[in-house]
Amino acid sequence: MRELELISALERALSASGPHVIRSLGDDAAVVRGRGYAVTSVDAMVDGIHFRSSQLRPEEIGHRALAAALSDLGAMGARAGEAYLALGLPRGTERDRALALVDGARALAERCGVTIAGGDVTTAGELVLSFTVVGWVEDPAEIVPRDGARVGDVVAVTGALGGAGAGLAIVEGRATAATDEQSRQLRERYARPTPRLAEGRQLARAGARAMIDLSDGLATDARHLARRSGVRIELALSALPLGPGVAEVAGALGSDPGAFAASAGEDYELCVCLPQAAIAGDALASLPVSLTAIGRVVEGEPELVFTDSRGVLAGYEHSL
Amino acid sequence: MRELELISALERALSASGPHVIRSLGDDAAVVRGRGYAVTSVDAMVDGIHFRSSQLRPEEIGHRALAAALSDLGAMGARAGEAYLALGLPRGTERDRALALVDGARALAERCGVTIAGGDVTTAGELVLSFTVVGWVEDPAEIVPRDGARVGDVVAVTGALGGAGAGLAIVEGRATAATDEQSRQLRERYARPTPRLAEGRQLARAGARAMIDLSDGLATDARHLARRSGVRIELALSALPLGPGVAEVAGALGSDPGAFAASAGEDYELCVCLPQAAIAGDALASLPVSLTAIGRVVEGEPELVFTDSRGVLAGYEHSL
Repeated sequence: MRELELISALERALSASGPHVIRSLGDDAAVVRGRGYAVTSVDAMVDGIHFRSSQLRPEEIGHRALAAALSDLGAMGARAGEAYLALGLPRGTERDRALALVDGARALAERCGVTIAGGDVTTAGELVLSFTVVGWVEDPAEIVPRDGARVGDVVAVTGALGGAGAGLAIVEGRATAATDEQSRQLRERYARPTPRLAEGRQLARAGARAMIDLSDGLATDARHLARRSGVRIELALSALPLGPGVAEVAGALGSDPGAFAASAGEDYELCVCLPQAAIAGDALASLPVSLTAIGRVVEGEPELVFTDSRGVLAGYEHSL
Repeated sequence: MRELELISALERALSASGPHVIRSLGDDAAVVRGRGYAVTSVDAMVDGIHFRSSQLRPEEIGHRALAAALSDLGAMGARAGEAYLALGLPRGTERDRALALVDGARALAERCGVTIAGGDVTTAGELVLSFTVVGWVEDPAEIVPRDGARVGDVVAVTGALGGAGAGLAIVEGRATAATDEQSRQLRERYARPTPRLAEGRQLARAGARAMIDLSDGLATDARHLARRSGVRIELALSALPLGPGVAEVAGALGSDPGAFAASAGEDYELCVCLPQAAIAGDALASLPVSLTAIGRVVEGEPELVFTDSRGVLAGYEHSL
C-alpha cells in the first residue's frame, strides 16, 4: 500500500472535528483557537522499548501512548485540548492494524474530550507512536509545577499503585493473580491506563503546590519533585495504596508489596504536594478517585527517603 | 549513559527561553502564552527513510528535520512560535552526537525566531526526529489553506527548484556538478534547506488563496492543491526556475531538467495560487526570494497537468 492511500484512510479514521478546531488534517497544519496559555507535552513510545507489540492489541497500544501523554497534562493541572500523532509504521503494516492503533487512541480521546487534530504517518523500522498533546489554562497561575513543594506539605497519590507493574508481570507470564478476573483487571491497568485529567485540575484548584505523574515509578518521580523543589520528601512504603491483587503478584515475584508498588512504573497516577489545610478541606471531597496521604515534605537536603525502607529504591529508567 | 543524564544534558543544550514561554523543560509540560489561533504541524524524519545518517552531519540532520516541519507553517502563512522534539536515539548514541543533532535544530530555530520549548528523548531502533511546530495567527482569515485556489489564479513558486534533488544525487555519489563550489552549494540545499516563513506570511498578506510547501516535489504537491481546491492546474515545465547547476546534474542523470525539478522533492519552496492582481502589485516587491509564475488555474476536472510534457510526472511518495 502506498503511504498516501494509508494516510487518507487514517485521515478518515481521525474525526478531527472539535469545538476549537478550525482546520485539521488535509492542510499543511491544523488550526486551533487558542484559549489562554498552551500547555504542551510530547511523549514517544517505541516498540521493544516502552511496550512489546506482541503482547498488546493495537487498540491498546494506541490508547496507552495517548494516555501517557495526556497524563502529563493532568500533572500540570491543565484542561486537555488537542493531540497530534507522529506514527511510524513498520513496512508492510496492515491497514486494519494501523487503523486499530488510531481507533484505540481516538476512543480515549473522545472519553477525555480531546481532539486528535493532526499528525504525520511514515515508515519506520519499528512501531513508534509519538503524541504531542496540548492543554489550555486561562492563567499560568493555574499551573502546578514540579518545583513548588514546601516544607510542611502533605504528599499524596491518587488511586492505587503497582497495578500496571503487576499487569506487566502477568502480560509477560512472570506471575498470575489469585483469580482470572483479577489477572484481567491488572492486565487492563497496564494496557489501558487512565490519565488523571479531571483529578489534576481539581487538585490544582484545591491548592496543589507541586505535582508529577507516575510514569517511571514513585521512587523516581517523587525524587524529581524533591530535587526540583529543593526539599526533602519522606514517604512510608507502608502507607502506599496498593491496587487489588498487587500484593499477591509482588509476593509471587519475591518482592515486598510496598517496594514493588514504589518502583513499578506506568500507573499514571498523580503524586501531589499539598498544604495540610487543602487535603483536609472540602475541595477534594468530590475527587473521582481516592487520594491517599503517603508522606510529608520536611526540612533537609533535597532528596526522597522512604522512612520504612533500608535500601535505596529506584524506579524505572530507560537506559540508552 | 543513562537516559536521565543525557536528557539533562539535552535540557541544558536547549535554550528554552523565549518571549512567550512561561515554563519549559523540567516540568511535565511546557507552558506558552497563546496568541490567537495555534497552527500546528507534525513532521517525522526516520533514518534510512527520509535521510541516511551516514551521509549527513548530525547538525544537518537536526536542521533538516526542523526545517521540514517549519516549512508547513510557512505554507499556512503562520508566524512560527515554538517547536517540540521527540528524539529517538539508537542505543549507544554518543552524547556529543545527540547534542549536535539538537544544536543544528537550535541554530535554525534561533534564526527563525522559534523557541524549542520541550520534547521527549527515548531509545529507538533507529534515529528518529519528530518535530511538532506551532505557529500563531491572530485571525483564522490570515491562514492560507490548500483548498482555496480559484479559476484565473496565477500559480507561482518561491526561489528555485531541483537544488535539493541535485544535492541528494551528489550526496549519494550519483552525479557531480560543474564545479566543486556548485556541488557544495547543491549539497547545502539538500542538507540545510531554508523554511520560507517570512515569504509565507508575506504571500498570505498579499492575498494568496492556496499554498503548499514543496516537500514531495511539485508534481505531487501541486496536485494536492488542484484536487483539494477542485480545480485544474496547468503548469509549464519550461517555466520552472532551476537552481544553479541543477540542469547539469539533471543532464548527468539522463533527465530533462524541468521534469527533474518538478519531480525531485525536499526543496521546501512554496507553491502558491494568487489572483493576477496580487502578483502584479507592490505587496510582493519586497519578497526575500524570487517568485516565479509557472502556470494558471483553469476550468476543468481537478487535476495537475504539465502542458509541455507528454508523460505523467510523479513526485516522491514514501511507500509503506
